Amino acid sequence: MTFYFLTLFPDMIRAYFAESLMKRACESGAVDARVIDIRDFAENKHNRVDDYPYGGGAGMVMAAPPVLRAVRSIAGVEAMPVINTSPAGRPFTQKEAKALAREESVVFLCGHYEGIDQRAIDAVVTRSYSIGDYVLTGGELAALVMADAAARHLPGVLGNSESLAEESFENDLLEYPQYTRPETVEGVHVPPVLLSGNHAEIKAWRHRESLRLTEEKRPDLYEKYLQNQKR
Amino acid sequence: MTFYFLTLFPDMIRAYFAESLMKRACESGAVDARVIDIRDFAENKHNRVDDYPYGGGAGMVMAAPPVLRAVRSIAGVEAMPVINTSPAGRPFTQKEAKALAREESVVFLCGHYEGIDQRAIDAVVTRSYSIGDYVLTGGELAALVMADAAARHLPGVLGNSESLAEESFENDLLEYPQYTRPETVEGVHVPPVLLSGNHAEIKAWRHRESLRLTEEKRPDLYEKYLQNQKR
Repeated sequence: MTFYFLTLFPDMIRAYFAESLMKRACESGAVDARVIDIRDFAENKHNRVDDYPYGGGAGMVMAAPPVLRAVRSIAGVEAMPVINTSPAGRPFTQKEAKALAREESVVFLCGHYEGIDQRAIDAVVTRSYSIGDYVLTGGELAALVMADAAARHLPGVLGNSESLAEESFENDLLEYPQYTRPETVEGVHVPPVLLSGNHAEIKAWRHRESLRLTEEKRPDLYEKYLQNQKR
Repeated sequence: MTFYFLTLFPDMIRAYFAESLMKRACESGAVDARVIDIRDFAENKHNRVDDYPYGGGAGMVMAAPPVLRAVRSIAGVEAMPVINTSPAGRPFTQKEAKALAREESVVFLCGHYEGIDQRAIDAVVTRSYSIGDYVLTGGELAALVMADAAARHLPGVLGNSESLAEESFENDLLEYPQYTRPETVEGVHVPPVLLSGNHAEIKAWRHRESLRLTEEKRPDLYEKYLQNQKR
């Protein structure tokens, strides 16, 4: 899967793909992360890509021409989803992450300053997402969040595909708590059932813990789970 | 404001604070970003910080002892919020971002692999947030999202404090569209009112656009706005 990031801050994106699981995902060929610096598409001697907003007001606005040139520099972009983030976008969820992972190529347009000239957005953006009801200084973190959430569904990115099946949201339940060595941490023992070797009991305990946690912490998900059980 | 990031992938965090607004925020002294590598607190020769989960299952779990030592290496940590991200956490919103910005110091504990031994979480984490209903490969992006959303409320981080007053969520409305030069982009003219110089009309147009966008894209926010207007 190829991710294109159109950004004014390319190193921020590159650093993410230089470490951790995403580095491995790139090395294995599961992910190809291409970073395009919008500043390279400025057509003035100062590489300026922003200007004052028409009508006045604080801050600067990213001008349409360099953004449009940058997007159109991607061969075959007409067939790719071009995504921006906006509080007006549809909520980005686990379901959307999985859908994104089925795309061959995805383009993320990262805004900065007071945003991007609306005419550029209208001309090229095919999908807007909101990753949450908060405002960020730019679109890079949001783009990385979406790329990361999608990439982990690609074959070979996570070490073990079982990790996907048991995680939160997969069946509208939160994941059960995890424990590892040592057996006792500052006087607190690992729940004895996990040392029992009885796989049926371990499975039942984990399921009960998932139910308990979801009911307590996320009654909205719990309600959804109960509805699905009735079907 | 001081952010501590406890992580297995320190460069990812450092890169974010080396560019863009956050770089300026650090240089001006508004933000102090301190990155602590949990691996430095491993007590074995291979710097191993993870182990197999008790009870079996896919993936690895971050062990409690190095996490606890890393958290406790921070002087005065007892008085600081220690935050992790979890689908079970309370939703992180703009309101929470502003509340976070009123803290002097905040500690982010970034999980990886299948998560952190629950006993470490129980012992030190004072607050759990969820940045959205999706799963990420690790807690770093979520911690950066929260730090970024909080930091922009600190004095001197954004260029102009007006930027904060007019943005999305501030009054339960989405922000109006922005335009900058040139006047015509691929045949599309900037809305004429923005060139009128009539500030009252510009203000009224922008407000109407905010109302229109919010009603169309985020009926939930629009309903909240209408309720507040009635008071």
